[in-house]
Amino acid sequence: MAIITLTTDFGLKDHFVGALKGSIYKELTNAKIVDISHEISPFNIHQCAYIVKNAYKNFPEGTIHIVGLDAEPTPENQHIAILVDGHYFITANTGVVGLITSEINPEKVVQINIPNPENGSFPVMDVFVKVACHLARGGTLEVIGRPFNGLTELKEYSPIITDNGKKIVGSVVYIDNYGNVVTNIHKNLFDAYRKGRSFELNARTTTIREIYNRYSDIINFDLEKANRRGAGDLLALFNSMNYIELAIYKSDLNTVGGASTLLGLDYRDTITISFT
Amino acid sequence: MAIITLTTDFGLKDHFVGALKGSIYKELTNAKIVDISHEISPFNIHQCAYIVKNAYKNFPEGTIHIVGLDAEPTPENQHIAILVDGHYFITANTGVVGLITSEINPEKVVQINIPNPENGSFPVMDVFVKVACHLARGGTLEVIGRPFNGLTELKEYSPIITDNGKKIVGSVVYIDNYGNVVTNIHKNLFDAYRKGRSFELNARTTTIREIYNRYSDIINFDLEKANRRGAGDLLALFNSMNYIELAIYKSDLNTVGGASTLLGLDYRDTITISFT
Amino acid sequence: MAIITLTTDFGLKDHFVGALKGSIYKELTNAKIVDISHEISPFNIHQCAYIVKNAYKNFPEGTIHIVGLDAEPTPENQHIAILVDGHYFITANTGVVGLITSEINPEKVVQINIPNPENGSFPVMDVFVKVACHLARGGTLEVIGRPFNGLTELKEYSPIITDNGKKIVGSVVYIDNYGNVVTNIHKNLFDAYRKGRSFELNARTTTIREIYNRYSDIINFDLEKANRRGAGDLLALFNSMNYIELAIYKSDLNTVGGASTLLGLDYRDTITISFT
Repeated sequence: MAIITLTTDFGLKDHFVGALKGSIYKELTNAKIVDISHEISPFNIHQCAYIVKNAYKNFPEGTIHIVGLDAEPTPENQHIAILVDGHYFITANTGVVGLITSEINPEKVVQINIPNPENGSFPVMDVFVKVACHLARGGTLEVIGRPFNGLTELKEYSPIITDNGKKIVGSVVYIDNYGNVVTNIHKNLFDAYRKGRSFELNARTTTIREIYNRYSDIINFDLEKANRRGAGDLLALFNSMNYIELAIYKSDLNTVGGASTLLGLDYRDTITISFT
Repeated sequence: MAIITLTTDFGLKDHFVGALKGSIYKELTNAKIVDISHEISPFNIHQCAYIVKNAYKNFPEGTIHIVGLDAEPTPENQHIAILVDGHYFITANTGVVGLITSEINPEKVVQINIPNPENGSFPVMDVFVKVACHLARGGTLEVIGRPFNGLTELKEYSPIITDNGKKIVGSVVYIDNYGNVVTNIHKNLFDAYRKGRSFELNARTTTIREIYNRYSDIINFDLEKANRRGAGDLLALFNSMNYIELAIYKSDLNTVGGASTLLGLDYRDTITISFT
Repeated sequence: MAIITLTTDFGLKDHFVGALKGSIYKELTNAKIVDISHEISPFNIHQCAYIVKNAYKNFPEGTIHIVGLDAEPTPENQHIAILVDGHYFITANTGVVGLITSEINPEKVVQINIPNPENGSFPVMDVFVKVACHLARGGTLEVIGRPFNGLTELKEYSPIITDNGKKIVGSVVYIDNYGNVVTNIHKNLFDAYRKGRSFELNARTTTIREIYNRYSDIINFDLEKANRRGAGDLLALFNSMNYIELAIYKSDLNTVGGASTLLGLDYRDTITISFT
């Protein structure tokens, strides 16, 4: 049976997540439920998209992803179910799906229209669960609703190329659990414009001239331990999603701090690459 | 096999929850374990009851709920197992079960009496897990212990009707992940006393004259976006449990704040409805 | 099928844990995944070891434990897989396994050497998951890598005996969700040196002369409630792992405080037992 994943801004203290899982098991005794995250900042569509985008591809094809954020249906926020990249997404038309699968055309999009929907303030349970269980039982999107072509498109913060290709102006798209600062500058973009030139990465008052592939690449194991760079030192790397990321090696936001706190970088701040 | 749910004040960092799950799987290879919450404020019986009450009904009948809060057995805090409303609860006699199922008479209550119990400081694992696994294997309450009729009853904070039915004086029973303020005033009570009259809801210095059924009902979609009420505006609604709740539309406690912070409302504060 | 447990410092908000679980299910449709903790303080090997040590034994023999902390392979931090005490651990050679199973000799240790490893910054997913799925399918360690005998040994903070056995000088090894202060003084050590003498436990300016076996042992049920010790009072006990622990009865770090905050005790602080 297909996996059902859950991504919400419900938090882990309240009854919402438990209620959701209970109602899935009530419909589908053998459901396989996996939490992606319930700690999305409330109503933060871009953050939600970032997290789902980086998680969903690791699941088997056919997985059903409930994205429960800003989920009340309104004339401008329809309930939709989408098949894209081999995965199902059940969500409201907030624009989150376009951000998650920005480079892929959806195979199918339907506006959810189930019989006798409850019209209350907990639609993730009242509607999304029913649709997810229908799909998990092998049901089709066609039964769930009618084709829909009004997908909300949200502006993605994309890097800008300036100075005749000599500069990439990107921005911070996420700060992770370690205080690592993730940018929207992909390795492919960087490589395409670099053309063998040397470069400078600027973030506020910080300049970096090397981009690693792993955090521990900061360490030169040929040196004695005392002479090495290491814990507490700043580095840039292409992270596991191949985006440029600034990190403090072995950071901890609760003790020594991380790149976000030590460089004073926040969501949407500018990161510049200059080729020379 | 019946689901076993877990509700505790253990938090998610320490080893307690992992140890608990391991010990269940050790007894019962095919156990189905679902977390309701491990973030209950330590020893907070009322909060625990609120969360379990709003989650348990969504699970299939026959589900076994371990409620692991203040669980050391003492002469005044017996270990009990209860069948009520088609669900099993395994807990200490803290009063939590009475709060969870306040309007329903338990079908069966037994004081747990298992052979050779460990008498240490982790009874949720040493005792409750054994009882849960026994029930999940189809065992009966009768085997677990003898009938018990000394259930602790805790005072519930119920609304008071004053002024010859012209006023309902309720209180705050929960602040959720969004800072939404949940009261103990049920829609049925409100409707029973309203009798077609207009009303005023007062919470500290705030007055509200309308109660919606969904958060997004605050928006008038006939108006241009710029002229609508919306994100950041205060509303009252009958929430998904049909209790009156005060909310800031699209709140976030870490950024713009929520109803609790913006109105200065906390657990047990008074909310008044006056009919005129 | 064997259980796969996860212990990491990824936190619960980011995509890492979801990605990890997805990639396990992709390889192993019927995987049984259990979270031990994802809230380990980043790169804190001792804390990680404490939590895994106290959780793993409760799982069935044959369980596969992924310990995903400081996991990038380097010349000094090899990827290893270990069979010890009937359990498998997949981790980097940080020293964490030695701390987890300090008193037990591993049956088998191999350095992981899988074909075509991805060499990126998310080795827990790229390498540990593959190894875990191999073991869960019944595969052997021999296939995974070659025998390894360079296990990193980290210093454990052990109590010191001074004054001709009249004093045990221990230290704080963990502060739990309740603010309870766990020491490294085991009941066996205490009993071995006590020899029927009376004793004094000193922690900063606090002196305790009794050690209980359960938190509620602080209460004398023969007294009227008003005259009893209870909520808010300090006690010492042998906790569920049989180590001496200081606790405030019914503490809550967010309201009344716990032993750590009220006594001003932190990780590594000294706790002394003097026999007289």
